[in-house]
Amino acid sequence: MEHRTKISDNLYMATARAPVNIAVVKYWGKTNEELIIPANDSLSLTLHIDHLCAKTTVAVGRDFKEDRIWLNGKEERVTTRIQNCLLEIRKRSREFMHMHNTGLPDYSDWHLHICSVNNFPTAAGLASSAAGYACLVKSLGTLFHVKGDLSAIARRGSGSACRSMYGGFVAWLKGLRQDGEDSVAKQIAPENHWPQMRIVLLVVSDVKKDTGSTQGMELSMLTSSLLEHRATKVVPQRMKDITEAIVNRNFHKFAEITMQESNQLHAVCLDTYPPIRYMNLVSWDIVHLVHRYNRYYGTNKLAYSFDAGPNACLFMLEDSLSEVLSIVQHAFPSSLGNSDFFRGAPAVRGKPPVELLEYLNITPQPDAIKFSIVTHVGCGPVSLDDPEEHILDIHGFPR
Amino acid sequence: MEHRTKISDNLYMATARAPVNIAVVKYWGKTNEELIIPANDSLSLTLHIDHLCAKTTVAVGRDFKEDRIWLNGKEERVTTRIQNCLLEIRKRSREFMHMHNTGLPDYSDWHLHICSVNNFPTAAGLASSAAGYACLVKSLGTLFHVKGDLSAIARRGSGSACRSMYGGFVAWLKGLRQDGEDSVAKQIAPENHWPQMRIVLLVVSDVKKDTGSTQGMELSMLTSSLLEHRATKVVPQRMKDITEAIVNRNFHKFAEITMQESNQLHAVCLDTYPPIRYMNLVSWDIVHLVHRYNRYYGTNKLAYSFDAGPNACLFMLEDSLSEVLSIVQHAFPSSLGNSDFFRGAPAVRGKPPVELLEYLNITPQPDAIKFSIVTHVGCGPVSLDDPEEHILDIHGFPR
Repeated sequence: MEHRTKISDNLYMATARAPVNIAVVKYWGKTNEELIIPANDSLSLTLHIDHLCAKTTVAVGRDFKEDRIWLNGKEERVTTRIQNCLLEIRKRSREFMHMHNTGLPDYSDWHLHICSVNNFPTAAGLASSAAGYACLVKSLGTLFHVKGDLSAIARRGSGSACRSMYGGFVAWLKGLRQDGEDSVAKQIAPENHWPQMRIVLLVVSDVKKDTGSTQGMELSMLTSSLLEHRATKVVPQRMKDITEAIVNRNFHKFAEITMQESNQLHAVCLDTYPPIRYMNLVSWDIVHLVHRYNRYYGTNKLAYSFDAGPNACLFMLEDSLSEVLSIVQHAFPSSLGNSDFFRGAPAVRGKPPVELLEYLNITPQPDAIKFSIVTHVGCGPVSLDDPEEHILDIHGFPR
Repeated sequence: MEHRTKISDNLYMATARAPVNIAVVKYWGKTNEELIIPANDSLSLTLHIDHLCAKTTVAVGRDFKEDRIWLNGKEERVTTRIQNCLLEIRKRSREFMHMHNTGLPDYSDWHLHICSVNNFPTAAGLASSAAGYACLVKSLGTLFHVKGDLSAIARRGSGSACRSMYGGFVAWLKGLRQDGEDSVAKQIAPENHWPQMRIVLLVVSDVKKDTGSTQGMELSMLTSSLLEHRATKVVPQRMKDITEAIVNRNFHKFAEITMQESNQLHAVCLDTYPPIRYMNLVSWDIVHLVHRYNRYYGTNKLAYSFDAGPNACLFMLEDSLSEVLSIVQHAFPSSLGNSDFFRGAPAVRGKPPVELLEYLNITPQPDAIKFSIVTHVGCGPVSLDDPEEHILDIHGFPR
């Protein structure tokens, strides 16, 4: 049983960690902007919490004057999206209190202090909002004793956050209801289902300021004449096919759909008016490199996926990892030391066959990749019961 | 009446010039590869023949041993596509001879010598095949006295060549027949319909070898899950809308559809598996520059279009030309002299308002554009009756 910490009769606290997820069937476009109901189902892999996570402490205090939030050490505005999450949690808490005689204090109308940090560079464009909102909702759930599926609440913060509420392989179903109550995440396979799966994030150096994904997908919904067809005709079949590929651990098919989905997301962005571009030349070099690698082997041993930025996410099975890392090192030599460049899970770099390197015909680009994170599929959010873990002090302020 | 030249009883000759065209509703994908029947209608502007054209002389000789062709001074293989054009012309010539007693010799079974040159650099990626095949078919039509619409024959050489068979604003209708006989070009407005229209081609410096458009569109047909929707659902409405915009000389709407069409072509290429990219960073800089320019004026005064390569085609009305040229010069300063950089029609460069330049916030990129061609809408292919124009000598060999 997960516990909040009672600091005093007037102050309670809870802390959680939550993972990042990477979509392989992409979410792009909402049918309801306010409720964050997506135009199509999507599917993601939850990344291991040790390598990429948000950590959040929430405190509820009788004496707090207002809801406040600190993100990565800086106080920020409590946005409408955060308010929506708080509203939903408080509502469910009251319902719970009303139905059960817990003997617990009902502090659902006290104010909250929220403090959240990421264990990875925020500026790297690694979609920290999914982990952040999942972590907020998880810690609030613990604090307010809210049980059951919380993914619909996380969804109100950031759509993709709902998928970070589960570990393993997770589908976000768009649902049928107008109120979005059935637009929730479902685990389709647990974290240990496909233990050979490896994920390598390549953080691409770029100075360009991208169109934000919220704004980008809204513009796509309004102007792309391909998005609706994608959402209603293409994605449903791909959801079925990739689910089957995951269930059967068919990497070739998994990789094919993953790459097609990434490309179609960016195709829809290009079809937006004015057009949106997220991939840069380094991203495209990675695309070509992956296809050449697969052509060499005559099967898909490697897949790429790109979100609303130039960073690449690579998928492969364990037995290809060391070769892929050595190719990354060859293609994008870094002036950092290996331990700064290859972060995340420890991994050895092999020596690729000479014929492979010749076939790939790489022109090395020094420092085109800032750093990489090697990881694998992990669990959903976890509550941290040890009071030492709190990142708010006993007065409810950032330590 | 257009005439072939009789060199002797055994050798006849005809020469023509034919223009390049730029599609604003794009052709991408065939439903019949061999007959070159397109997946959707398309629409283009024919560019002025003085600034971009092919010139072709065809000679038919009793003593020629085989069909031969010289392109830009070099003998090339007579490809299947060229053979298909020759076959169709010879067939129609025989039909004509059979029906009319012309007193002319029937040389439809003699061999042909073909010589063709472009008045622009072939390597610049300016889609020379459209002008080339239109010119071949026009000159053959004159030589063999074939009357009527020849666009279906030009289509067998290169799909977009059929649109170069007419001047002004030209639609290529995909047609309904299995044999492609009704897949022909139709002029929707003559060359003098919208005299203010100006076109500026920007030849982008690039070393990359692109996927050829024939191969690219075949792969898109096979693998893109968006192409069919585009071809069957999106393009029909755009054909109607842009035709109306042209008829009413509504530049704002014309520009909007032109840019959306360009973007959708490249979106479909991205949705192809493996994905195809034609636009480079300079192409994207032009895209962003055009949208900023239009935003400054609050209406579309400028449009871009990109084909299977990084070169941009800009459309604007006469009263914007000098300002646009000065912005091009500002954004892409050239180490060439002005007369080498600005080719085509003579045009003055104005001085853009300081506020506009500030708004555009351009980072100049020296020599990112190799050169430009300023032009306008022009006529279809023309026969050149003066024997001095022939580029084959009196023996039927390149001069």
